[in-house]
Amino acid sequence: MDIRLGDNQYGKAETRLVRVDRGEAGHAITDLNVTTTLSGDLAATHLTGDNSGVLPTDTQKNTVYAFARDGVGEIEDFAARLAKHFVDTTPTIRRARVRIEQYSWERFGHHSFVHRSGARTASVTYDGTAATVVSGVDDLVVMNTTGSEFHGFHKDGYTTLPETNDRILATAVSARWRHGRAVNDDWRASHEAATSRLLEAFAGTHSLSLQQTLYAMGEQVLRHREELVEVRLSLPNRHHFLVDLSPFELDNPGEVFFAADRPYGLIEGTVVRDGAPDPGLAWW
Amino acid sequence: MDIRLGDNQYGKAETRLVRVDRGEAGHAITDLNVTTTLSGDLAATHLTGDNSGVLPTDTQKNTVYAFARDGVGEIEDFAARLAKHFVDTTPTIRRARVRIEQYSWERFGHHSFVHRSGARTASVTYDGTAATVVSGVDDLVVMNTTGSEFHGFHKDGYTTLPETNDRILATAVSARWRHGRAVNDDWRASHEAATSRLLEAFAGTHSLSLQQTLYAMGEQVLRHREELVEVRLSLPNRHHFLVDLSPFELDNPGEVFFAADRPYGLIEGTVVRDGAPDPGLAWW
Amino acid sequence: MDIRLGDNQYGKAETRLVRVDRGEAGHAITDLNVTTTLSGDLAATHLTGDNSGVLPTDTQKNTVYAFARDGVGEIEDFAARLAKHFVDTTPTIRRARVRIEQYSWERFGHHSFVHRSGARTASVTYDGTAATVVSGVDDLVVMNTTGSEFHGFHKDGYTTLPETNDRILATAVSARWRHGRAVNDDWRASHEAATSRLLEAFAGTHSLSLQQTLYAMGEQVLRHREELVEVRLSLPNRHHFLVDLSPFELDNPGEVFFAADRPYGLIEGTVVRDGAPDPGLAWW
Amino acid sequence: MDIRLGDNQYGKAETRLVRVDRGEAGHAITDLNVTTTLSGDLAATHLTGDNSGVLPTDTQKNTVYAFARDGVGEIEDFAARLAKHFVDTTPTIRRARVRIEQYSWERFGHHSFVHRSGARTASVTYDGTAATVVSGVDDLVVMNTTGSEFHGFHKDGYTTLPETNDRILATAVSARWRHGRAVNDDWRASHEAATSRLLEAFAGTHSLSLQQTLYAMGEQVLRHREELVEVRLSLPNRHHFLVDLSPFELDNPGEVFFAADRPYGLIEGTVVRDGAPDPGLAWW
Repeated sequence: MDIRLGDNQYGKAETRLVRVDRGEAGHAITDLNVTTTLSGDLAATHLTGDNSGVLPTDTQKNTVYAFARDGVGEIEDFAARLAKHFVDTTPTIRRARVRIEQYSWERFGHHSFVHRSGARTASVTYDGTAATVVSGVDDLVVMNTTGSEFHGFHKDGYTTLPETNDRILATAVSARWRHGRAVNDDWRASHEAATSRLLEAFAGTHSLSLQQTLYAMGEQVLRHREELVEVRLSLPNRHHFLVDLSPFELDNPGEVFFAADRPYGLIEGTVVRDGAPDPGLAWW
Repeated sequence: MDIRLGDNQYGKAETRLVRVDRGEAGHAITDLNVTTTLSGDLAATHLTGDNSGVLPTDTQKNTVYAFARDGVGEIEDFAARLAKHFVDTTPTIRRARVRIEQYSWERFGHHSFVHRSGARTASVTYDGTAATVVSGVDDLVVMNTTGSEFHGFHKDGYTTLPETNDRILATAVSARWRHGRAVNDDWRASHEAATSRLLEAFAGTHSLSLQQTLYAMGEQVLRHREELVEVRLSLPNRHHFLVDLSPFELDNPGEVFFAADRPYGLIEGTVVRDGAPDPGLAWW
Repeated sequence: MDIRLGDNQYGKAETRLVRVDRGEAGHAITDLNVTTTLSGDLAATHLTGDNSGVLPTDTQKNTVYAFARDGVGEIEDFAARLAKHFVDTTPTIRRARVRIEQYSWERFGHHSFVHRSGARTASVTYDGTAATVVSGVDDLVVMNTTGSEFHGFHKDGYTTLPETNDRILATAVSARWRHGRAVNDDWRASHEAATSRLLEAFAGTHSLSLQQTLYAMGEQVLRHREELVEVRLSLPNRHHFLVDLSPFELDNPGEVFFAADRPYGLIEGTVVRDGAPDPGLAWW
Repeated sequence: MDIRLGDNQYGKAETRLVRVDRGEAGHAITDLNVTTTLSGDLAATHLTGDNSGVLPTDTQKNTVYAFARDGVGEIEDFAARLAKHFVDTTPTIRRARVRIEQYSWERFGHHSFVHRSGARTASVTYDGTAATVVSGVDDLVVMNTTGSEFHGFHKDGYTTLPETNDRILATAVSARWRHGRAVNDDWRASHEAATSRLLEAFAGTHSLSLQQTLYAMGEQVLRHREELVEVRLSLPNRHHFLVDLSPFELDNPGEVFFAADRPYGLIEGTVVRDGAPDPGLAWW
């Protein structure tokens, strides 16, 4: 037989979990979107429909809710608890990845909250032996209104872009950073510090290209957070074009811009610490 | 001929405008999504394709950008400037409505900004004589983790919902409030105060139904803001269902919830001040 | 007391219902998104949280599913059954509107289906006495690659748009048509015919403006379908801009276009038959 | 220095191109969404902002439009032309991937079209020596109303899912298939045949698990299309839950279902021909 099963995985995507902690002084909420992904000895279900090795995705969802009964804590820990459980208790499962997005809420009053933009993320992969932890942020939308240039680029017969010494630089940061070890006393502090470093580098870099800003962001995180070994960034370039007002006999000294939707530049890159442990399945 | 043209309007939707003000002490950005809608003596273009009375939607877009050259200011004023311009200078146009969404950015550093959720809105309608101004918020997502009940409702043969004395109440507030007059020295202060009153009422109302919360929100705004005469609210009920953990021999004392997508309750209502002037075209 | 409750309504939005009919010769599926909206004597719940007049939105959802047990049939009939039920059996409810989107599936094989784009819609409003029926289509995306001009428009100081004798005309048709009577032996045939007339008029009209095309579409429907009395259309103008290839020493004789996202023109209009009955709550 | 640049790439995402071919007998349209991604010797721009090796993403967009002037043809060929151009003419670029989505339009009349759901995709990667071609479909939404079971699965303490001998199986197929060679006389015929085989296998497989259906779909494609060597499928399980109508004293013999949004199962897998050439950068 010359056709065979290759790589495969399965799981439950986007289990929406909200946990309420009812403290005397004020409530707290943990608002998560959890995706579990399992792989292992799963040929039978693919080839013959023998499901004896398949832990249903419905069970995975139930497990997320049941585990939350004891408290969620930091999402890196919750993801690790779940990933280890699936591998350690399901005979066929060799690897699990649990990815969590945590939405941000700000408390006002005793038990009232307002939603804030941006998501904190964590992804833990576990293979029965070792866990790898990646933390991150999604959709952190930022803009610099000056301090960004783009010139000296390669030109060919299809190049019409004028060089500029002053442009708007705007992007929606998706960043992931890999931890060197699977344990951390204070995941939250680590996350807040890494996010602050990203913002600090975005604001503080006089940018000659979005690539330069990307590298500066990753480099700044690694330089200041020794628990981290690698940063991956995906930065869409949300173009803002200066509107030509000359038909109306108006100048436009960098004041009025059109925010474009598509197309957009997309800059992706990795910054890594020398001697970082092998990523293994971290980015799987 | 027994078939005729009825109500009609046209315009340019979603002109994306970003204006930068470059102060010494720090930049400021105004990030808008502007929709212009015109109506008037437009039968000719519908019936014969005679466009002599049609101001192109492309021109409307250009006007938005050109007017921004002189500064935007508060969105209620900017919308009014545009609406008056279209009616006063285009012979065929009898009414204009300009609706603006303003996105929120928080400055950090001299010229760096991070996007925040929620949108401030304004809508101005002008008919050649009078302007009516409506301000509002979109997508202000809030949650109370207690202080909400729902019981004593009408039951029929299709009712299975259990009564509850304690539930999560979560919604994405879309609110619009009508001003009694078309002028205001401080639209921004008015907007911030109205929004605060909405949040205050949401948090402060012990709720027996989302309708009761809705009315309290509108009533609170009108009671404290005498410049306003009417509040319209649209509140999707973002259901959070307590997860049944009993199959796993766990209780669930109001801690673990499933956040559902669809279907959702949708509660819409108006709170109005007695003697409010006729809304005219305000909600057109 | 100078502040009072104004217009209000509530209901269950987006109840997703799929019904399977298992015929010998082949299955059939009915895939619906149902939104129910009720209004009536609902002051008590708003003012005091007395819910004795409130039929829970959860019950409305249950009713949708229970009614589907007997078959759905045409969506106009299903919406009418539901609307009448809510008004006739709930003491406080004076008006109901039921809006349904029906998604399109094409059968291949005995019980297999592939989803097709576009949605058929129906909206029935009932006030205890009379029902008004509106049918329609959503998101019917069409394009003419020629046969569309736009010139002779009003020009002011902000007009830069060149006149054109040949452009692409593309839009996503949202159309609603009101029936003169609440009964029809064959809603499906009526719907298919009206949709065909819309497409026929879109394709067959040499267009001098999108407004002219809009009117032709509505007029064509009314001319050929005597059961209909009014057509409302909302047509976003999905601009396709000819790309300037001259920097690359290439001409572009109407071949290469950029499909833009925002902003877009938005043309809305109504075509009505003289002597049509009063719309009453049809467009509520 | 212990921190360094790792993997990186950049490009222009979502260039929207519509090409019109104006035949005597009828027009034809090619509606594409093109994303170009380049990598190579790009350290300088990241580390110092020296852009001399950077071909601007704006130029990449221009190139897409300029190349379309000569005709697009099949998207596999168009992607290959672009990928080779970028690598062969830009000194720093070592690899290019061009990914294209093609939207479907059906002609009615001479120059009128209606949009149809689903997208054909192609992705070509080129490293200066060899091109690898992957074709596919996105968002092909299908449903079987019977012929699907799920039982005999692994149960643990968190399993509550009942076993079933008859359920609805619905999914939105994302499939990619890799060609053994970079040339093909008739990409279109190959694509249509592969898509037909996917649908045929979906409809024809009595399914004991979605994994079994997945494998059958990939296997069927490879068995009948010798030009293909690997198929990757991502199948979200769009759950349809039988509604419990017993509270209303109604049975529900597989007729009335609730179509759920989240969470959803997500089944991903690969089917590969033995002896397939190394994928190289195909899935990069």
